[in-house]
Amino acid sequence: MAKRDIPYTDYFTEVVKTMTGTGLLLVSKDGNDRPNAMTIGWGTIGAIWGKPMWVILVRPSRYTYQCIEKTGDFTINVPPPGLKEAVTFCGTKSGRDYDKFSTCKLTAVPGRAVNAPIIGECVVNYECRVVHHNDVLPSELVGAIQNSAYKDGDYHRVYFGEILEAYADEDAGRKLK
Amino acid sequence: MAKRDIPYTDYFTEVVKTMTGTGLLLVSKDGNDRPNAMTIGWGTIGAIWGKPMWVILVRPSRYTYQCIEKTGDFTINVPPPGLKEAVTFCGTKSGRDYDKFSTCKLTAVPGRAVNAPIIGECVVNYECRVVHHNDVLPSELVGAIQNSAYKDGDYHRVYFGEILEAYADEDAGRKLK
Repeated sequence: MAKRDIPYTDYFTEVVKTMTGTGLLLVSKDGNDRPNAMTIGWGTIGAIWGKPMWVILVRPSRYTYQCIEKTGDFTINVPPPGLKEAVTFCGTKSGRDYDKFSTCKLTAVPGRAVNAPIIGECVVNYECRVVHHNDVLPSELVGAIQNSAYKDGDYHRVYFGEILEAYADEDAGRKLK
Repeated sequence: MAKRDIPYTDYFTEVVKTMTGTGLLLVSKDGNDRPNAMTIGWGTIGAIWGKPMWVILVRPSRYTYQCIEKTGDFTINVPPPGLKEAVTFCGTKSGRDYDKFSTCKLTAVPGRAVNAPIIGECVVNYECRVVHHNDVLPSELVGAIQNSAYKDGDYHRVYFGEILEAYADEDAGRKLK
């Protein structure tokens, strides 16, 4: 599928709805240059420090955490409805145990600007470079979220990823409806 | 202008474009129950911890910082093009020196769910409650941003505000074009 550059602000509503529904695929590379995909249902998008930005959260226990700590780069990929099964797989299995790209028959297309591939089958792709990170602070979090998200600790690292490239399938508007 | 409830995901593209163009108005109340408006050009929107979320940044030197620290509540208001002058005023003057609502002839309408008013003249309004905060960490920030945004220190506090209400003017779509 041919990709075209888009303003990073395009399709925000559709992207966030997909994220909170099916989920999005966060891709990063491990120390052996092997790409790994993780499903995310949480994240925010906008602009910080005058730069287009994705804010994402990754738990230290995740394989993706090691990858991003190593490379500082990641991509966010918006799956079409047909990729639902792959998104479920990537959200329940670890990259320590599976090569998710080969198992799910996903195509890793090298990033243009970052050291992480995008997923060719996804409808919208963002290439991001970490410009800042901090952590979720147990002491500054309301109790309800402590209970719902952190019963086992493993507090998320918050990555601020500058969006260096944003592109989409030619017919993204139709596919995201 | 009559307001109608909207899905918080509506108008994301338009809202972020307005934010990085004219700016948005962040409203909070001070210790004397007096509302104050601050212009913001940076922020991200989406979902975290399964909740609709605005992520905003406020420097400790700002009057708004004291307000949010005290109340834990704020609103985000999307101005129509006609409010540009007010947005400029609110972005260059401090609530310590001016009553911005009376100076700019803005209408403070009490929040439905939070202890901060919205601005009646704005096209889209979000009511937010802080569920977490952390800080921008100098040690984890790329040099270019250190230089562009923090020459004088005053590193931002990052507020994670759960969106409890989202509503808009009946004709928001037309006004945001």
